[in-house]
Amino acid sequence: MKTITIDLDERSYNIHIGTGALDNAGSIIAEVCNGKKAAVVTNTAIGKLYAERLTGGLENAGITSNVISVPAGERFKTLKTVARIYEKFLDEKIDRSCMAVGLGGGIVGDMTGFAAATWLRGIDFIQVPTSLLAQVDASVGGKTGVNLSRGKNLAGAFHQPKAVIIDVSVLNTLPPREFRSGLAEVVKHGIIRDRNYFEYIENNLNSVMSLDPVALEHIVSVSCMIKADVVRQDERESGLRRILNYGHTVAHAVERLTGYRRYKHGEAVAIGMVTASCAADIIYGSSTGMTDRIVNLLKAIGLPYRCPPDVSHDDILAAMGLDKKVSNGKLNAVISVEIGTAYVDDSISQNQWLAALDRQSQL
Amino acid sequence: MKTITIDLDERSYNIHIGTGALDNAGSIIAEVCNGKKAAVVTNTAIGKLYAERLTGGLENAGITSNVISVPAGERFKTLKTVARIYEKFLDEKIDRSCMAVGLGGGIVGDMTGFAAATWLRGIDFIQVPTSLLAQVDASVGGKTGVNLSRGKNLAGAFHQPKAVIIDVSVLNTLPPREFRSGLAEVVKHGIIRDRNYFEYIENNLNSVMSLDPVALEHIVSVSCMIKADVVRQDERESGLRRILNYGHTVAHAVERLTGYRRYKHGEAVAIGMVTASCAADIIYGSSTGMTDRIVNLLKAIGLPYRCPPDVSHDDILAAMGLDKKVSNGKLNAVISVEIGTAYVDDSISQNQWLAALDRQSQL
Repeated sequence: MKTITIDLDERSYNIHIGTGALDNAGSIIAEVCNGKKAAVVTNTAIGKLYAERLTGGLENAGITSNVISVPAGERFKTLKTVARIYEKFLDEKIDRSCMAVGLGGGIVGDMTGFAAATWLRGIDFIQVPTSLLAQVDASVGGKTGVNLSRGKNLAGAFHQPKAVIIDVSVLNTLPPREFRSGLAEVVKHGIIRDRNYFEYIENNLNSVMSLDPVALEHIVSVSCMIKADVVRQDERESGLRRILNYGHTVAHAVERLTGYRRYKHGEAVAIGMVTASCAADIIYGSSTGMTDRIVNLLKAIGLPYRCPPDVSHDDILAAMGLDKKVSNGKLNAVISVEIGTAYVDDSISQNQWLAALDRQSQL
Repeated sequence: MKTITIDLDERSYNIHIGTGALDNAGSIIAEVCNGKKAAVVTNTAIGKLYAERLTGGLENAGITSNVISVPAGERFKTLKTVARIYEKFLDEKIDRSCMAVGLGGGIVGDMTGFAAATWLRGIDFIQVPTSLLAQVDASVGGKTGVNLSRGKNLAGAFHQPKAVIIDVSVLNTLPPREFRSGLAEVVKHGIIRDRNYFEYIENNLNSVMSLDPVALEHIVSVSCMIKADVVRQDERESGLRRILNYGHTVAHAVERLTGYRRYKHGEAVAIGMVTASCAADIIYGSSTGMTDRIVNLLKAIGLPYRCPPDVSHDDILAAMGLDKKVSNGKLNAVISVEIGTAYVDDSISQNQWLAALDRQSQL
């Protein structure tokens, strides 16, 4: 079991990573929370698989708990579902001494965190992420929130968890496509911050893809540490933290243009990272071989790397906010010219983006 | 113009109190916020009276603004109304660089604060309270929130404003009953914390009741300072801050038993303060004359001091959580035995409360 400390002064917390961490959740939670009662928020599918192990462990640690099930799927990440969680909190008499535990992927975590942030003006929150994406991404940063009909994550709060408990063995029940999608963010962490880590993924991909526990613990730990290091330096997302958006500008455009249905988030990020790498190639003249390396790794994982052929590049630019209607349309794109480092670049022109998209479509 | 600094490290802010403060709001806001765009949230009645003065001042300070009107009344202090504010934020393109300004009483302030706390995970918030209650109570403490159908203020967040701007001249348009209700909290501040202040109110009641600007500035300033002093020592409401609940246990019971319709909040607090004072008389044997003094002041203001005759004392006890169903029913009541000081007492028995209510009904 590995422990990573997220250092945020009085809001510091530990991420516990290991095979079987779920069975230790009770004692881990009892150590950081004084409460004797918890509400475990999960969705039906995840709950069926893991809720009993979690509530059993809580009981052994002297914490009573009830399970609150929310429907699975991004379209239920709404204020309405949070209002239903509030109702259940009332039913279960969840007061300020109690804890809310989010058992599930990013959607469950975001909503549980938001409900915890706003219930009685804030109660303790524990994250038990069960998707790779949530484990490497949502574990660090304190972001919680819900979607509105007109946009994702528009309502939310920063609310740091008291602990994050990551059992990598739960990835055995994660749909393979979800797992691959999560790996896109792992690859991203290597590109923006750690060349050795990128090479580790290249060299150990078989172990990772076959869910070898040691490899999984390694990637989850390193990814959490990389994100923690970036977030620590920029908790409220004003500067450095933007590099975590590597690949995300194009990803968001592609997701929106395909109705949030065709691609998993990580798949769109994979596509966006390749665009960003092609943009670096365009700006700096010739290729450093970086784009090929990224594409090869994404291919080996089984992630897409080209933009959808039925979506025009002009539409992508427009969705990026670079259409002519935006007069002073400067885009804070994240660019990496060398694996292991990235920076924010707002000087890339519309034509350069178009050239990058063209280059990408010829890969 | 008086300025009171609420000292909360990096979340510190100033309360600006004075006649005509509303006209200086633009420059005050421009001084503490970098944003160039604001959403002014208000209700129709208040908006009609004061929104233009506020938006005009903002414009003079180089800040564009739009007015968002919400319906007046506690029953609209809901997640639904907040969702409507979010929609307007979207329409007005309110981003993280913008400010939300709450112009109105406690309801507008609580909802605007909650929307600001949760919009894009938090934007700058300015309070311009227009009721006496909001000026002396909501200005300090950072509480924001909405009601659920099953209880008041259940969903919310702590979100400190960047500035509070109190123009006491707006009290001229406050309905007299609202003004008297606000004075109940002012009297409370004297009882729990400052004997001289209580005496000031006794001795200057005519000036206060006739809305003399100097007297109003004085009571708003001193009340804000008293609350700030208590909150500063206990920001998250775990210990000392409870004394601010003086009179509130019975008040909440009476409000609930009369369907939140018969009494303004301050009126219920007035009743509850007299019960608390009678309880002190019961516990400590004989009266120190404190109850008479409080009753006389409340009478002079025009506030109620007896429990509603059509509500049984048993029902009040039950609504206080002191019925037989609660096995270990300990109630953290706030007691003052001498004007100027108060403490939390959980040792008062059911019979003592009954005796206090009986004594009160004979006043």
